[in-house]
Amino acid sequence: MAGIEVLRLGHRIERDKRLTTHVGLAARAFGASKLYYSGDQDKTVEASIAKVVEDWGGEFEAVYVGDWRRLLKDKHGEGYLLIHLTMYGLPIQNIIDEVRRLHREKNILVVVGGEKVERAAYMMADYNVSVTSQPHSEVSALAVFLDWLQEGRELEKTYADAKKIIIPSARGKTVKRRG
Amino acid sequence: MAGIEVLRLGHRIERDKRLTTHVGLAARAFGASKLYYSGDQDKTVEASIAKVVEDWGGEFEAVYVGDWRRLLKDKHGEGYLLIHLTMYGLPIQNIIDEVRRLHREKNILVVVGGEKVERAAYMMADYNVSVTSQPHSEVSALAVFLDWLQEGRELEKTYADAKKIIIPSARGKTVKRRG
Repeated sequence: MAGIEVLRLGHRIERDKRLTTHVGLAARAFGASKLYYSGDQDKTVEASIAKVVEDWGGEFEAVYVGDWRRLLKDKHGEGYLLIHLTMYGLPIQNIIDEVRRLHREKNILVVVGGEKVERAAYMMADYNVSVTSQPHSEVSALAVFLDWLQEGRELEKTYADAKKIIIPSARGKTVKRRG
Repeated sequence: MAGIEVLRLGHRIERDKRLTTHVGLAARAFGASKLYYSGDQDKTVEASIAKVVEDWGGEFEAVYVGDWRRLLKDKHGEGYLLIHLTMYGLPIQNIIDEVRRLHREKNILVVVGGEKVERAAYMMADYNVSVTSQPHSEVSALAVFLDWLQEGRELEKTYADAKKIIIPSARGKTVKRRG
């Protein structure tokens, strides 16, 4: 299986700070290796995500992109499959087998929007995919898409360099600390 | 299969407005019938969710609760299964079969936190369940839990009374309007 990256369109400083951070953390927790984001550059989002990576491990990072169309063109040129998540798209349950098959060879860039996504994103994507045809959240759409894409295998992921590791428990909080 | 409701703990006005709205919309889109929320009462959250329900259908609502411990006690008394989603809990992939089996008979209340969840939530829950043992988001944890619980069947849900209905399309936005 090839790699996964995520692009979050149209970040607005202050208003979207926590949502974009949650998009980044969900991307990381569900197996993506990088968050690109466009709109306003926001060092607090980048720092929040970097802090999580420092404690919990891996090499995930949040990277600002000034020109997201250019990023899509470049990734397309590099052979990435471009998946745009939108409530208007084709149902995930109908399209996921095809996407999984392509993902054996091709890296994927998953694009999620904010409130208003420009038409170019729909046109440049290889697939416009809906996770339900109802309004909900870019955070939930992304997580459920990544979970379906990897058929739950991402839930088992561990990080060799983590400073904090949770030992699952029925009732309480058990964290092993290292380093 | 019995019903599903959601409780979001510790809402803080302004800071959490959009996240709690996203929790509510994800709850609705993934098959829950109600969002309870505690912390600060916030009419803008309630209104945002009510507007979505008016346009997109169904009977979902957001209801403020002043005393969440009382709500958990009452729901427990009514025979609900209380599921608390937390990164410290038992992995969803190990526990979901048992929860699905119980859910054939029992309604479920899914509890999600904000930044800091009091110990009582861990103690009062029937199950503390993790969706990965990594930090991400109450929005993504809730959506993935509900999707696993219902094995994707919730993705097919439609609303007979919707004013807006999306016709899925490969590239574009097609919305049928009624009423």
